[in-house]
Amino acid sequence: MENCSWCNLSEEDKQFQVYEGMFWSVFLSDEQDYIGRCVLALKRHCGQLSELTDDEWKELRSLICKMETCLKAVLGATLCNWSCLMNGFYKDSEPKPHLHIHIRPRYDKPVILNGNTYIDCEFGHHYAKYKSGAIPIKDKEKVFTLLKEWLNR
Amino acid sequence: MENCSWCNLSEEDKQFQVYEGMFWSVFLSDEQDYIGRCVLALKRHCGQLSELTDDEWKELRSLICKMETCLKAVLGATLCNWSCLMNGFYKDSEPKPHLHIHIRPRYDKPVILNGNTYIDCEFGHHYAKYKSGAIPIKDKEKVFTLLKEWLNR
Repeated sequence: MENCSWCNLSEEDKQFQVYEGMFWSVFLSDEQDYIGRCVLALKRHCGQLSELTDDEWKELRSLICKMETCLKAVLGATLCNWSCLMNGFYKDSEPKPHLHIHIRPRYDKPVILNGNTYIDCEFGHHYAKYKSGAIPIKDKEKVFTLLKEWLNR
Repeated sequence: MENCSWCNLSEEDKQFQVYEGMFWSVFLSDEQDYIGRCVLALKRHCGQLSELTDDEWKELRSLICKMETCLKAVLGATLCNWSCLMNGFYKDSEPKPHLHIHIRPRYDKPVILNGNTYIDCEFGHHYAKYKSGAIPIKDKEKVFTLLKEWLNR
């Protein structure tokens, strides 16, 4: 769809794509407030879960399983927080939501990347909404490589 | 499972059950911070989305569609926020998570119940985490009746 940023991703936007399925893509999120945070985005324009086709549901299920397993295996996540919100689109006078799902891995132990330690300070509680998600590019690239390699084995 | 409150719901806990499927039940949440907020709970003990059976996934999809349609038709919801978090279980030394999914309907217009007006002040933004969810029992019962009747037509 014209004017939908999710339908018109640039090469730069796709730089951190960790996996591409038939119907969904998975990107490492810009915000790494929870290390390994990703977003599953549908490859066609569609506004809500209830409008998914049979095949899109089937792949979504398989990706949920794949991502949970991957984040536990690669980064030591204890669990994953899943959310499908879409609120931001509704700031527009004519909202054109594009389905995407957030995955925040949660950790009961620190994650160490290139010698830097990341602690999930809110473990056991709802994720923080306004935590800084900026991490050194070297650490982000490390997470990207680990996830991409595992997911595309 | 013994010691799991979701596996051992009392009659009082079930007082606000709006729908019972083969594998999932839907309850009106105690917190009505977003009018019509519900929780979908799996009827067997299972800790994560990736462990759902084929039949449980199939019913989950059908319930997501049913709930989205219901909340729009009955309460005028603009969209629904879906989340599967399970963080609270991980406060325990031996966490035994029981799968459940939160649905928060979001509104671009006020909802009126028994003459009381409810406004989604955060519309277009992430749901508030610590908003009071207490509403008069008469209003909660009205929402309960509206949803239950629609879902069990």
